[in-house]
Amino acid sequence: MRRRHFIAVLALTGSLLALPALAAEQSKPTPTTKELLARSKPAEWRTPDPENLLLMRLPRGQVVIELAPDFTPLHAANIRTMVRAHYFDGLAIVRVQDNFVTQWGDPASDDHGDKSKLRSLGKARSTLPPEYTRPIDPKLEWTALPDGDVYAPEAGFSEGFPAARDTASGQEWLTHCYGMVGVGRDNGPETGNGSELYVVIGQAPRRLDRNLAIAGRVLEGMPLLSGLPRGEGPMGFYDKPAERTPIESVRLVSELPQAQRPIVQVLRTDSATFAALLDAQRHRHDAFYKVSSGKVGLCGIEVPVREQARTPAKH
Amino acid sequence: MRRRHFIAVLALTGSLLALPALAAEQSKPTPTTKELLARSKPAEWRTPDPENLLLMRLPRGQVVIELAPDFTPLHAANIRTMVRAHYFDGLAIVRVQDNFVTQWGDPASDDHGDKSKLRSLGKARSTLPPEYTRPIDPKLEWTALPDGDVYAPEAGFSEGFPAARDTASGQEWLTHCYGMVGVGRDNGPETGNGSELYVVIGQAPRRLDRNLAIAGRVLEGMPLLSGLPRGEGPMGFYDKPAERTPIESVRLVSELPQAQRPIVQVLRTDSATFAALLDAQRHRHDAFYKVSSGKVGLCGIEVPVREQARTPAKH
Repeated sequence: MRRRHFIAVLALTGSLLALPALAAEQSKPTPTTKELLARSKPAEWRTPDPENLLLMRLPRGQVVIELAPDFTPLHAANIRTMVRAHYFDGLAIVRVQDNFVTQWGDPASDDHGDKSKLRSLGKARSTLPPEYTRPIDPKLEWTALPDGDVYAPEAGFSEGFPAARDTASGQEWLTHCYGMVGVGRDNGPETGNGSELYVVIGQAPRRLDRNLAIAGRVLEGMPLLSGLPRGEGPMGFYDKPAERTPIESVRLVSELPQAQRPIVQVLRTDSATFAALLDAQRHRHDAFYKVSSGKVGLCGIEVPVREQARTPAKH
Repeated sequence: MRRRHFIAVLALTGSLLALPALAAEQSKPTPTTKELLARSKPAEWRTPDPENLLLMRLPRGQVVIELAPDFTPLHAANIRTMVRAHYFDGLAIVRVQDNFVTQWGDPASDDHGDKSKLRSLGKARSTLPPEYTRPIDPKLEWTALPDGDVYAPEAGFSEGFPAARDTASGQEWLTHCYGMVGVGRDNGPETGNGSELYVVIGQAPRRLDRNLAIAGRVLEGMPLLSGLPRGEGPMGFYDKPAERTPIESVRLVSELPQAQRPIVQVLRTDSATFAALLDAQRHRHDAFYKVSSGKVGLCGIEVPVREQARTPAKH
């Protein structure tokens, strides 16, 4: 009983609730995300360009990552070059640090790795300009959040990704929210190249914003990256090679035969349905909630994803 | 190389850096958390009352939880009553929902559970007053954070726990940051009793603040709760009983023989060293960071814990 009800409520909180626009409707419980999404229009969903979608195959399933070339175009291009050369096939998840990141790449680049076995980057570049921020471009979607942000002057969503901006400097950037994929690098700002990637698996480490290039976002398969045993070596690296999760392959979806392509759609962050979800998150009222927060933080809402046709929806 | 340097940097970000007080010192790299903690004084560390410490034994290790009786005294008392009666022994982790919570309790209370097998609460109360907030008490420590908070008028730390307050209402409350342990309940505000507990394993679900009682915080062993495979049933419940993690036992540390007691200490959140850690988090400068955030969010900093003597330190 207790659990059943707590389940029901968390079904709502794991997703979102909608705020009826009129005070007269306040007595109705807020509809669930599922209900709001069911009412959404087809045009409110964006189908990512298959040139921007990576499919990473792991022993227990597949992960779909959307690249963010509007923010990190050179990194997207370099990652595509590596993926087309099958650079990641046979590499591994080498690190899982609790409440921080899961990281994958070439095990030979570990501190104790055999550097003579480092995989060649092939035609990919070994260094890239930082791309930590970009000039604000009015042509890019910007959906501002109304409740402020601890770390940035303004927070919101751009092209489906959590982002922040500073009109004083004229810059905008993607933010380190749960599921965002960043580019590991050396101390030098040009030392990242996309061959080592990490994904945020805990509380958003926003201090990393503007210090690392963000390559994109995991659209599907986060549990395959977040639910791994934590590495017991320094910084969450696995002590023993056998603890690593092997990467079977990474492919650009554009390279796959049509029949193998996941049909993934992302709710447009400039859509009325996304606005309703945000509003619902802020002004929740139902049998469970005693008080609504009245607020929503940037990393407190995940942009809905749906997969159609060949595989069942994950969200 | 790339990884080695990224490791070194994340060693800092996984922990914290200190800000030299003088501009003249800005050329020195910020010391690491490890360095700052090494300089801390013994009096800056608090040894939790063993009456407030729970030791949960799982197949892969043990979890130490500190109860928060200053905020949820009736829940602490009820949980102690259940623990003394060995209520949790043989129960299980029944749910792991990605980017949300890990939950444990009586599997018989599942939707499909056999209600005739529900374990008796014994002398523990089946309902409790909510204890979602409490009146602000000037006798309780309050260390305010300087950078604001999206969800509350004021955020900070009280008695070692992340907390928020509203001087307008005169209330303060613990917040749903990573590692905080909450009390599952039914729709009614008095339906929680502590027999079903959850811990935050993802981005802080701050919308739950003031809607659920927070019983305490995991001081040690988070990876045993966060690194579990996500449940594939609705809301992250495990579909199959075999997927659950059995709870071998939960004991009050005060009940254990001295030789079996973990010697856990928590950095005082009103200490100079904690202030230095906060300052470092805000104004980081070193070879890796190109910009410091200048800010720190409530759930962006974990209060340091150390374990002495009989078992190796986890932090």
